Amino acid sequence: MIAYDNDNIFAKLLRKEIPAEVVFEDQDTLAFMDIMPRVDGHLLVIPKTPCRNLLDASADQIAAVAQTAQKLAVAAKAALEADGVTLQQFSEAAGGQEVFHLHFHILPRHDGVPLRAPGQMGDMEQIKAIASKIRAAL
Amino acid sequence: MIAYDNDNIFAKLLRKEIPAEVVFEDQDTLAFMDIMPRVDGHLLVIPKTPCRNLLDASADQIAAVAQTAQKLAVAAKAALEADGVTLQQFSEAAGGQEVFHLHFHILPRHDGVPLRAPGQMGDMEQIKAIASKIRAAL
Repeated sequence: MIAYDNDNIFAKLLRKEIPAEVVFEDQDTLAFMDIMPRVDGHLLVIPKTPCRNLLDASADQIAAVAQTAQKLAVAAKAALEADGVTLQQFSEAAGGQEVFHLHFHILPRHDGVPLRAPGQMGDMEQIKAIASKIRAAL
Repeated sequence: MIAYDNDNIFAKLLRKEIPAEVVFEDQDTLAFMDIMPRVDGHLLVIPKTPCRNLLDASADQIAAVAQTAQKLAVAAKAALEADGVTLQQFSEAAGGQEVFHLHFHILPRHDGVPLRAPGQMGDMEQIKAIASKIRAAL
């Protein structure tokens, strides 16, 4: 198992060294907007304690993140008036992972609307406006 | 919320009306091979109790399925000597869902090997051989 890197960007975000558009927080988890949204309302859910991905997480971390992901999926679907939701989790680079702190992607989906290509910065004003809608739906 | 359909194929599978290549089972969850594998070792994890997807599942169903998914991700990565794992969950048709009983996809991944196109039947002998390896890794 590869060791957890304390300088990954989500570790920095948890230490508030870098900003995040947070929409939900509880004792164990944090949910915030992806700044490279593959669809409007693209959210990330992470545990507050360190783990790299699904392969080294504890059962408690997994349960907490999955339950917060569900809560956010329901809220984001309502806020975006979406038709469905896609959840993704990538473990290690071969699995699609780019930031090595466990995170679940929540993607509100509309019929016939494909995901945008990855790696494109979103419009922060639009992302903040969507975050407000999701908070209101929680 | 759309009502749960008792005649979806995973409900039939749970009632043993149709066969499945089961690799793991506990009180709350069942894990079995996807017969249209998008990658070698493609697994599905479902709750034994009815729910349509992430949007109507209980917190207990979510925790149980996510924890079994983790267990299987670790075992499948070892059994397939994979480099990573991709987890997917689709809620409603717009989210990518085709069978309307909550399921998590576990996809062992190798560096540089893309997912195969969906909807193609796998070779059952090969699937059974991979299932044996995953059981041995649990």
